[in-house]
Amino acid sequence: MAVVVQKYGGSSVGTIDKIKKVANTVVKRREAGDDVVVVVSAMGDTTDDLIELAGQISKNPDKRELDALLSTGEMMSSALLAMAIKELGYGAVSYTAYQIGIKTSGQYGKSLIDDIDGDNIKRSLSEGKIVIVAGFQGINQEGDITTLGRGGSDTTAVAIAVKLAGVCEIYTDVDGIYGVDPRKYNAAKKLNEIDYEEMLELSSLGAQVMHSRSVELGQKYNIPIYVGLSNSDIKGTIIKGVSNMNMESKPVTGLATSDEDVAITIRDINNDINMISSLFESVASKRINIDMISQTAPIDNRVNLSFTIPKADLNECLEIVREHYSCKEAIAIDEDITKFSIVGIGMKTTSGVTARMFKLFRENNIEVKMITTSEIRITCTIKQEDKLRAINAIAGEFNL
Amino acid sequence: MAVVVQKYGGSSVGTIDKIKKVANTVVKRREAGDDVVVVVSAMGDTTDDLIELAGQISKNPDKRELDALLSTGEMMSSALLAMAIKELGYGAVSYTAYQIGIKTSGQYGKSLIDDIDGDNIKRSLSEGKIVIVAGFQGINQEGDITTLGRGGSDTTAVAIAVKLAGVCEIYTDVDGIYGVDPRKYNAAKKLNEIDYEEMLELSSLGAQVMHSRSVELGQKYNIPIYVGLSNSDIKGTIIKGVSNMNMESKPVTGLATSDEDVAITIRDINNDINMISSLFESVASKRINIDMISQTAPIDNRVNLSFTIPKADLNECLEIVREHYSCKEAIAIDEDITKFSIVGIGMKTTSGVTARMFKLFRENNIEVKMITTSEIRITCTIKQEDKLRAINAIAGEFNL
Repeated sequence: MAVVVQKYGGSSVGTIDKIKKVANTVVKRREAGDDVVVVVSAMGDTTDDLIELAGQISKNPDKRELDALLSTGEMMSSALLAMAIKELGYGAVSYTAYQIGIKTSGQYGKSLIDDIDGDNIKRSLSEGKIVIVAGFQGINQEGDITTLGRGGSDTTAVAIAVKLAGVCEIYTDVDGIYGVDPRKYNAAKKLNEIDYEEMLELSSLGAQVMHSRSVELGQKYNIPIYVGLSNSDIKGTIIKGVSNMNMESKPVTGLATSDEDVAITIRDINNDINMISSLFESVASKRINIDMISQTAPIDNRVNLSFTIPKADLNECLEIVREHYSCKEAIAIDEDITKFSIVGIGMKTTSGVTARMFKLFRENNIEVKMITTSEIRITCTIKQEDKLRAINAIAGEFNL
Repeated sequence: MAVVVQKYGGSSVGTIDKIKKVANTVVKRREAGDDVVVVVSAMGDTTDDLIELAGQISKNPDKRELDALLSTGEMMSSALLAMAIKELGYGAVSYTAYQIGIKTSGQYGKSLIDDIDGDNIKRSLSEGKIVIVAGFQGINQEGDITTLGRGGSDTTAVAIAVKLAGVCEIYTDVDGIYGVDPRKYNAAKKLNEIDYEEMLELSSLGAQVMHSRSVELGQKYNIPIYVGLSNSDIKGTIIKGVSNMNMESKPVTGLATSDEDVAITIRDINNDINMISSLFESVASKRINIDMISQTAPIDNRVNLSFTIPKADLNECLEIVREHYSCKEAIAIDEDITKFSIVGIGMKTTSGVTARMFKLFRENNIEVKMITTSEIRITCTIKQEDKLRAINAIAGEFNL
């Protein structure tokens, strides 16, 4: 019997009726002969409600306690789903992170799964039970409850699939992964499959379908991840290692945009690599994530340095910048940016993609501010007002 | 420094504002120099709300999963209280049953605490932290989450006080323990102190102030338990071993009534001890709790046998009775009973209490149906319509 690890998101278990529906679906899968492990998110808006409660106590709630608080949402939904399955006459058992040893490291609120002690899951499966696991949570070395960050239940599911050498199915409220966000581009096309690397670039770039860490795990252990609707004939998307044949068929797989960043430019500074790397180290030490960096060619050894950071970190980052560069007048902030990225494994073997993209931008009168590239990605910042025109032009050109 | 274990009930932590108030109270106690461990119940009606959710899934929800579900309520309130204390600038840490090894045995929903691994609590106290513990929950030998039954957080608190050799304070929404329920008798007097044994008789008899098991633990390890309002000058009640002097001062300490039982009478059966004990064994095997038993004197070796059981178990119990005694017409059910009990260590040394009680019943035209007694208790069943008259007469006579 194959082991199937299914994950159901918060909207799939948002009400008792929906939990009963999931129970029915899961039982059918068990009847078909598979061993089934189900990972659940918290019901509907539970996590937001808990965050709001914590917010009434503190603007900056203690992170250990916030994780302990938030973990209860998934414990509730997992116990309720196990009840619902037992009510249908099937064996079921719910497990918390403690009970199956989901060991994590890293910070509260965005911990990483290091390992899972799969023994309890395996024993329960061997007893014919359907196993329900509270997603999103783990236990760190100190024995504290941790959470994995928004969407972390995806990662719980993939990690269990890795541990049990099973297949992984992520059920959500969208019917798969699209080359472009369908809310921003009507003609968006669903992908039958997408490479791990492409998915990683897209999810870290604002295509919020999957928890990035889950895709990394899938890639590392070569576990295909199905993403789609449950209980539906509509075929979803498989995230997996894509063959060369497929790579060559389409140079660009998807595009993603994000309005969450701000660009800081420091003008006319010495091209002093020690000074600049000291700045970036200070920013990194505050766990502020610098994304795009660009620097003008030096003139008389003077340069302009630009970089983007999350909007939420702007004030903290500016303080650090001012500790390094006292001349306040030389610092410019640009909040009117959209990060616009196209991604495709095919770019490795197809030349001219950048040229096609910039030709379209020029034709559509879209100004490009900063540019960074990787082997399978081109990212630039543009004005927010140009975003939809850019999406239409690029998605049309590359048939996304 | 003394270790103080405080328990706050659901109404004391019913809102975020109330949790903040508890945080202030706890911090003041810490400031006064004590090591403080706080045990919390779930916020307000959380437990009832969770039971209601489970009820939408099943009329008889799986007990393992129900315990897992219900345990989340106390995890939430403990994390929130720890946050609130940290917000005041004090060290605090919340712990679940897993994290401090609250080991239980027995059935789901009414488990017994066997032991607590106090190391994490002691370490955190030695680091100057205030320790918050999720009440009501434990972990059984299988690693499942269990709950201790309604009011079980009292028992969590006493068990921790036992483990840490500390004092125990139960804060609730009543200002202490009364000889009679003040809602049923206006002139009810609050007790300054009450003996463990008396409290046990009263709480198992329907005076729902304290979780019985908590009083048993206090008695076994001789830990005095303070019960009262928090943040108040009104003095509460101490549950402890009472000295002889006090015992003799008052023959009756309290009275309690319960309408939760039903009497079953089997008429005109053989006085066959094997048959009768076989019946009681069958009933006990279904975990139905038989309370009062009375049997008429045999005439021609025929007797009438009466006993009381919880109303909820009536149908199941009747089935068992009919398996043993096929003659249906000989079984009578009396649902119109109030169990009326008076309790007092002083009864051991004061004679004539029973006589005074029955004289008052006779004068007030109150019919007594069944009677049982112990060394410190007299219980009889009366008609429900006579309950308030009985309370008034007895509470007046014995100055309760």
